Amino acid sequence: MAVYTEVSDEDLQAFASAYDIGSVVSYKGIAEGVENSNYLLQTTQGTFILTLYEKRVDPGDLPFFLYLMEHLAEKGIPCPTVIHGVDGKALRTLCGRPAAIVSFLEGMWPRRIRPFHCTGVGAALARLHLAGADYTGHRTNALALKDWRSLFDQSADRADEVSPGLAALLDDELTFLEANWPDDLPSGVCHADLFPDNVFFLGETLSGLIDFYFACNEFFAYDLGICLNAWCFERDRSFNITKARAMLAAYSNVRPFSSEEMGALPMMCRGSAIRFLLTRLYDWLHQQDGALVKPKDPLEYLTILKFHQHVNDVGAYGLE
Amino acid sequence: MAVYTEVSDEDLQAFASAYDIGSVVSYKGIAEGVENSNYLLQTTQGTFILTLYEKRVDPGDLPFFLYLMEHLAEKGIPCPTVIHGVDGKALRTLCGRPAAIVSFLEGMWPRRIRPFHCTGVGAALARLHLAGADYTGHRTNALALKDWRSLFDQSADRADEVSPGLAALLDDELTFLEANWPDDLPSGVCHADLFPDNVFFLGETLSGLIDFYFACNEFFAYDLGICLNAWCFERDRSFNITKARAMLAAYSNVRPFSSEEMGALPMMCRGSAIRFLLTRLYDWLHQQDGALVKPKDPLEYLTILKFHQHVNDVGAYGLE
Repeated sequence: MAVYTEVSDEDLQAFASAYDIGSVVSYKGIAEGVENSNYLLQTTQGTFILTLYEKRVDPGDLPFFLYLMEHLAEKGIPCPTVIHGVDGKALRTLCGRPAAIVSFLEGMWPRRIRPFHCTGVGAALARLHLAGADYTGHRTNALALKDWRSLFDQSADRADEVSPGLAALLDDELTFLEANWPDDLPSGVCHADLFPDNVFFLGETLSGLIDFYFACNEFFAYDLGICLNAWCFERDRSFNITKARAMLAAYSNVRPFSSEEMGALPMMCRGSAIRFLLTRLYDWLHQQDGALVKPKDPLEYLTILKFHQHVNDVGAYGLE
Repeated sequence: MAVYTEVSDEDLQAFASAYDIGSVVSYKGIAEGVENSNYLLQTTQGTFILTLYEKRVDPGDLPFFLYLMEHLAEKGIPCPTVIHGVDGKALRTLCGRPAAIVSFLEGMWPRRIRPFHCTGVGAALARLHLAGADYTGHRTNALALKDWRSLFDQSADRADEVSPGLAALLDDELTFLEANWPDDLPSGVCHADLFPDNVFFLGETLSGLIDFYFACNEFFAYDLGICLNAWCFERDRSFNITKARAMLAAYSNVRPFSSEEMGALPMMCRGSAIRFLLTRLYDWLHQQDGALVKPKDPLEYLTILKFHQHVNDVGAYGLE
């Protein structure tokens, strides 16, 4: 939880005056969020989110993200949309950082996952994949198979501090994935970070998808693997097949799987598991004194990876 | 900046159902705030603040604070008021902590202080002092003269790590204050923590006073000393007499000083300076690994203390 950049009231008001959103009556830094600084902004016209993009976001990627959200919202995906200034610009600078104001979405992200949440996420992910089909932007996944080895190399010598044998296990897994990763699968715009804190619900209805700042062109089944890993493991790290079945059924009701995708799903889940394991491991081993964000436990994803290593067919995920 | 207690959506909705405030549509942890956990809560009926009182607040004091805010608001002081549940209760428990929902106030706290802010604060403080006159609650200041020596003793052996000679200076100052502190001055309910981040403005108009969780019965002039110290020193630690004059003039327009108060003002400013110097010194020397809040620099208040040590009469504050 963090606000990395403190924005003064004067700077904020000067910034907001470039928009036709009324007068600012309040703004509060939001404690949630790991990568960027977010403020809840209230004006005489309503509630908005102000985001300052911090150093882990490449400014060159921002137009891809912001126009993607606009594109998806036009197709009915409940995601924030960027507010354009009176000069038409969607992106400007605040406190030396790229910054944008986006629309506010109602809803709460679920702390305790129930099967209906997984149904909602599965259907929303499939709709997102379909809605992105005619988006003209393109962004290569910066945390894809090709990037994992170098990420691993930056943590390899100290990985066993986190868990004995971890370095060898990761090395073997990478070798396996590099040898067996499919060349092609149905692909398109993916969210690539659809964890529970990025999905809002009002009651049992999914009301919003947020945080598109890892979105990229990727295999759809990989995006689904991210969701299976993020939503279908319990706190005790056991796999909940009921939730997985609910998610996969809801997804395939909207966008049916090809047989290649179904066959590749265990591999996609392994890839997703190692991607988050590697970034968490890196963050764990490279903690800085005074950091505002407590790093997440990489070992959660080690358990998840090991689960998928033992999956032989998609029956383990509740698919028939 | 911190949210110490993470509240789940389910716990929050169960909690909110005890109130007649509509359905919860959103809640976000607020990054500001040092002592307690605060959430901005949006419901179908409006915006509220949910506060969970953390360990530095004595639960036995909460009724004093909450009923004080109600009392002051009835008298026209722009402060939050506690929302009562349908059962009439103002205070209940959430995630094992005492918790309350209070009204939301518009406005922004000023990062760069200008004289008009000091005018607003001076007048509001005087009105608060008058409005508290018939409040029946009573709370002894837990950080008063009688408490400073024991607070100092907990940091004395390491004070010189922060600044060479600091321990002796504090010892001497406490001895002076203990010998010369007045027995009696006009007193009543004081805010006792009216720093800029606790005062909201809309344009040049003061729109809200918040965070009454240090409020207590104290000399009014001591409360004014806290404000002079918090608002009238520049970032380079120089004293801005224009701001002080503005604050004192605005205060005395609403509530004229007695001659005893005026004479005691330098002493009150020294007392206020050492109170914040001692608590900041304690927090600085007792930092915990992984703490969510970065402690404030105690030396800011050493400069302020030294300034007041050289004040012989209130002309130095712009009073005639």
